[in-house]
Amino acid sequence: MSLTVAVAGASGYAGGELLRLLASHPHLRVTTVTAHSNAGQRLIDVQPHLRSLAHLDLVETTAENLRGHDVVFLALPHGASGAITAELGDDALVVDCGADHRLVDEDAWARFYGGDFYGAWPYGLPELPLAGGGAQRERLRDARRIAVPGCNVTAITLGLAPAVGAGLVAADDLVAVLAVGTSGAGKALKPHLLASEIMGSASAYGVGGVHRHTPEIQQNLAAAGGDDVHISFTPVLVPMSRGILATSTARVRDGVTEEELREAYGRAYDGEPFVHVLPAGAFPRTADTVGANTALIGLAIDLDARRLVTVTALDNLVKGTAGAAIQSANLALGLDETAGLPIEGVAP
Amino acid sequence: MSLTVAVAGASGYAGGELLRLLASHPHLRVTTVTAHSNAGQRLIDVQPHLRSLAHLDLVETTAENLRGHDVVFLALPHGASGAITAELGDDALVVDCGADHRLVDEDAWARFYGGDFYGAWPYGLPELPLAGGGAQRERLRDARRIAVPGCNVTAITLGLAPAVGAGLVAADDLVAVLAVGTSGAGKALKPHLLASEIMGSASAYGVGGVHRHTPEIQQNLAAAGGDDVHISFTPVLVPMSRGILATSTARVRDGVTEEELREAYGRAYDGEPFVHVLPAGAFPRTADTVGANTALIGLAIDLDARRLVTVTALDNLVKGTAGAAIQSANLALGLDETAGLPIEGVAP
Amino acid sequence: MSLTVAVAGASGYAGGELLRLLASHPHLRVTTVTAHSNAGQRLIDVQPHLRSLAHLDLVETTAENLRGHDVVFLALPHGASGAITAELGDDALVVDCGADHRLVDEDAWARFYGGDFYGAWPYGLPELPLAGGGAQRERLRDARRIAVPGCNVTAITLGLAPAVGAGLVAADDLVAVLAVGTSGAGKALKPHLLASEIMGSASAYGVGGVHRHTPEIQQNLAAAGGDDVHISFTPVLVPMSRGILATSTARVRDGVTEEELREAYGRAYDGEPFVHVLPAGAFPRTADTVGANTALIGLAIDLDARRLVTVTALDNLVKGTAGAAIQSANLALGLDETAGLPIEGVAP
Amino acid sequence: MSLTVAVAGASGYAGGELLRLLASHPHLRVTTVTAHSNAGQRLIDVQPHLRSLAHLDLVETTAENLRGHDVVFLALPHGASGAITAELGDDALVVDCGADHRLVDEDAWARFYGGDFYGAWPYGLPELPLAGGGAQRERLRDARRIAVPGCNVTAITLGLAPAVGAGLVAADDLVAVLAVGTSGAGKALKPHLLASEIMGSASAYGVGGVHRHTPEIQQNLAAAGGDDVHISFTPVLVPMSRGILATSTARVRDGVTEEELREAYGRAYDGEPFVHVLPAGAFPRTADTVGANTALIGLAIDLDARRLVTVTALDNLVKGTAGAAIQSANLALGLDETAGLPIEGVAP
Repeated sequence: MSLTVAVAGASGYAGGELLRLLASHPHLRVTTVTAHSNAGQRLIDVQPHLRSLAHLDLVETTAENLRGHDVVFLALPHGASGAITAELGDDALVVDCGADHRLVDEDAWARFYGGDFYGAWPYGLPELPLAGGGAQRERLRDARRIAVPGCNVTAITLGLAPAVGAGLVAADDLVAVLAVGTSGAGKALKPHLLASEIMGSASAYGVGGVHRHTPEIQQNLAAAGGDDVHISFTPVLVPMSRGILATSTARVRDGVTEEELREAYGRAYDGEPFVHVLPAGAFPRTADTVGANTALIGLAIDLDARRLVTVTALDNLVKGTAGAAIQSANLALGLDETAGLPIEGVAP
Repeated sequence: MSLTVAVAGASGYAGGELLRLLASHPHLRVTTVTAHSNAGQRLIDVQPHLRSLAHLDLVETTAENLRGHDVVFLALPHGASGAITAELGDDALVVDCGADHRLVDEDAWARFYGGDFYGAWPYGLPELPLAGGGAQRERLRDARRIAVPGCNVTAITLGLAPAVGAGLVAADDLVAVLAVGTSGAGKALKPHLLASEIMGSASAYGVGGVHRHTPEIQQNLAAAGGDDVHISFTPVLVPMSRGILATSTARVRDGVTEEELREAYGRAYDGEPFVHVLPAGAFPRTADTVGANTALIGLAIDLDARRLVTVTALDNLVKGTAGAAIQSANLALGLDETAGLPIEGVAP
Repeated sequence: MSLTVAVAGASGYAGGELLRLLASHPHLRVTTVTAHSNAGQRLIDVQPHLRSLAHLDLVETTAENLRGHDVVFLALPHGASGAITAELGDDALVVDCGADHRLVDEDAWARFYGGDFYGAWPYGLPELPLAGGGAQRERLRDARRIAVPGCNVTAITLGLAPAVGAGLVAADDLVAVLAVGTSGAGKALKPHLLASEIMGSASAYGVGGVHRHTPEIQQNLAAAGGDDVHISFTPVLVPMSRGILATSTARVRDGVTEEELREAYGRAYDGEPFVHVLPAGAFPRTADTVGANTALIGLAIDLDARRLVTVTALDNLVKGTAGAAIQSANLALGLDETAGLPIEGVAP
Repeated sequence: MSLTVAVAGASGYAGGELLRLLASHPHLRVTTVTAHSNAGQRLIDVQPHLRSLAHLDLVETTAENLRGHDVVFLALPHGASGAITAELGDDALVVDCGADHRLVDEDAWARFYGGDFYGAWPYGLPELPLAGGGAQRERLRDARRIAVPGCNVTAITLGLAPAVGAGLVAADDLVAVLAVGTSGAGKALKPHLLASEIMGSASAYGVGGVHRHTPEIQQNLAAAGGDDVHISFTPVLVPMSRGILATSTARVRDGVTEEELREAYGRAYDGEPFVHVLPAGAFPRTADTVGANTALIGLAIDLDARRLVTVTALDNLVKGTAGAAIQSANLALGLDETAGLPIEGVAP
């Protein structure tokens, strides 16, 4: 089976990563790539690492150019995908890597994003354990619209959902700090993203509860079974292109043991092809997930601080964006969930 | 005035940084440098960046070689400095960059370090605000023995002590996650410190309350006025040689405003030459402190999470080690506290 | 078809990269992994990025453990592979990533390596254009023994061979300087390879004609048709894990134009799946080849200096080692030459 | 003595580095800082590492604002300084870090830069050995106008001038390849300078004799005594903020020995405070020069290739720009040549 694919926003990092993965997907074949300011150029001139897609030219991101494909992946700035999907019709599977269709709560949308609210689509985090049992995966089969999670959100959600869902930790005073690579900030020309500013330096941003990923984390942990979810979440930009290492902590309920916690994580993730819980004493490195759709989780209880500490590593462009999009599309299309998705990280 | 100085452990990173700073100190003159396995070599062959000290040769780290100087700086593995200082006599000012004389509590020593307990010395963090008023600075004047704080400890302590001391936050559920450069781990040959393993990767270590800096943080925050201090503290190794960015959070007491918090930080640090609180909305980068004895602090309240979030940047080898050592020595010797200490970071 | 594979030296970087690529090879299946000091451990504990090979355990590198496979890949220190292959018998295809079977000239071996000389095997650089016409590829079909080139050698050879072979440049005064990532130096614990020493720094090594790759470059360029080949070759270690960017220059013969040079490169590489010559004015980045078996070449004539300057980018662990090994094995086994080999680089 | 200083272009990297060094200069006191798009802001908001200059505000870069100071440093784009200096009058010492007053040859200016030609000023490379004996230093005493060299130029010139000047190598076929940090490219927002593009990657630019620094290198080596100077010069951008490592090669004349070469370098640089030739077998790292006005040179003869290979390390922002400017100003003002200039690099 070969399905045709269009990728909108093909000149950015998320779009480029979709194309890198799709180039070796056994069933999906990219036939259209669109861009905004780079429309008219050859794809290879903008994304020189995509050698086997050198025959493609970038066209304008319009509904007309995107129509007529079996699958459309959108890697557009927030606001842009919401506007264009209304024009796409229902024939294609549409997978949005942006924020426009993630949030269920219109108030949260208004507070953190603003502008038109487009409503939530099935959420592309197949491994999310749900309060009533089962996982988000089931909601993606036969979906025609999918909203891909934010990269920081995926790292924190995977790291905390099993403990929150099992009621082993308090959900109302979560604290997460993430070391994040620069590609998550995209290709836009901003002074603080210049190489000279980033190399040899670490800096925090979105401090104090203002980061847009906050309500999405709350939504996920509530879906997993958390009551009254509150989280202090601080991303720290560090000198690497890819990767998120999320250190997420939660107050452990009295008497809860590491064994109980490991059982909860096992129930959530045993058998998952892309999410792995490391043995006691082991904690992941982001390098082990680079280029792969893999998330690795380590955990420990700090007895003195009475907190669970989980450390989750993933590649923001793969499991955090493009890989999650393809994994979800595979589910929606009835393909093997793992088709076209690398498991081995490119380390060192 | 010119005082003679010996530096023990001159082939390591902390020793090298002491020498880099001392090379342009107006009143201190290095006459002896000692090492263990590198003894017998020229200093310049081991520390090729110390061009103006090219005339010095490394001799064995023995009490005999260290005696007869006005000041002795020790940059030795923990356990080693405790053993040698007993032999040094009381003529010299001895400043220990290791852990041996930091902890007051012998039980904490036994639990986190083990081996002989040498007892605590005056603690070399001049800016530490004390519960009874005033700062640690006063305890360093005329001191003959000084214990320099651990680098992670300094970052967290500076970031939380004013809030904890003023009772504006709860001290019993602190959470800190630090992005740390590799030089803090020293020059020892460990596989996970190879460049190929570090570049492009972030990883956590000492997770779950086992890091040796934990009791020292508790000791400091108690000195600042904190009751029942508990902290979950996770260092994350990121791809940079120098720098610590500590994101430290604490539950804000009901009704406390950012203005009250800023007043508390102002009381603690206004007028300090090396510790600066940034204005609202600004958060520091480690690059701005590289090579300097400067610590920069940004802070915000996360209203939804009801937590104070402080972000502290410093150079682990300077304000985190060698600079703190020299600053404390300046105080003990009655010199200008800032003598020989850069304020401007080497950025970009 | 499924062939069994053993990888010797599976705990190092070259071995790890062989395994990463083999994990998704359609016809080769790794059944044995061997190591020296890590024997007895689980592979996943030593190479935590190889999630889908988590079932494998490391055994001792002995002839006994390596026998009985269809293909044996050796990623061993030089000297070690020569010794063990004599014991392997002729049933298996043996592909050596080390230096032991690269050099034809015993004197060159003695001068640059020393120790036992094992004799040259068919050389695993399929794209090498040969003086008499055709390419090295033909010599690899049905081979039972293959010597994989050195990574620096491949970069320089691909960059200069077409010009040298076509007689458009003088071969007797070549100059190449390479920016190289640290993984080429392997996982051995050497002080200058510590992350703190590498990050933020560039340094040259093997300066002045002493680098062991020198005779191999001469051998290749002679095979391509060069007379009296002499090359000054300097590798510069730069702060990245993977990648080689070789800037290789040669004196252009009088009257030679860039058009003639481009024709020669076109004759050599047009149609190659893994070697691409960029259009005029374009020069490659190593990032575009990370994790891929791709080599990218840019070229220009410096009219004032009368030199051809070529810039070649590749991933030292893939096209420079493990990818070349698998590509050559594919040829020897009669498989599709590109089987299991990524073309798209992992960028950014 | 305290002289007043204005720095034009204070918001860029060169301007920032001038300020960092001037902040601790014993005789120079910065009273005015100017900028273009950042005029009106506080300096500390644009250069947050310059804590002790937090009292300064950025004003417009106009002749009026620059007049009335003892020294004016210009760190402006080429073309801009030439235009403004005509308006400054002769009272102040004017030191230009840009290209406008470096080239003697108007044709070379027209070919590589274009636009108005402003004529050459005394050239700020004090250590440059001159053909007739002596060094460039003498031409800087009492100068009222100084043109600071380009950073790549300084690295290549220092590395080759003694050999070229002594006639021990041929000047007509020089080849240099430089690993350069990103700060040399400035703070302008260019896509290829984004951190995500630079980290983990090396790339060449200005390939094929088109780099603007080429005629300046030829001018310097001719001044040192070279006949018919031709050089192929390729800068390679590598993932570090600061530093240049120049590998420069030249054909050795028949019979010349390393001893003769070392004597020539000794004659040129022995006693220099900032330029050091390393012993045989030693080659420099850029890290050893970070933040310092130091240049380190290693050299070897490649007997087979019959080329001298020199490796020169320096910090492009210090010895390559701001340090050279201050060193030259010290000479022109009759101050100690080393005043305010660090010798020790900030390593690791």
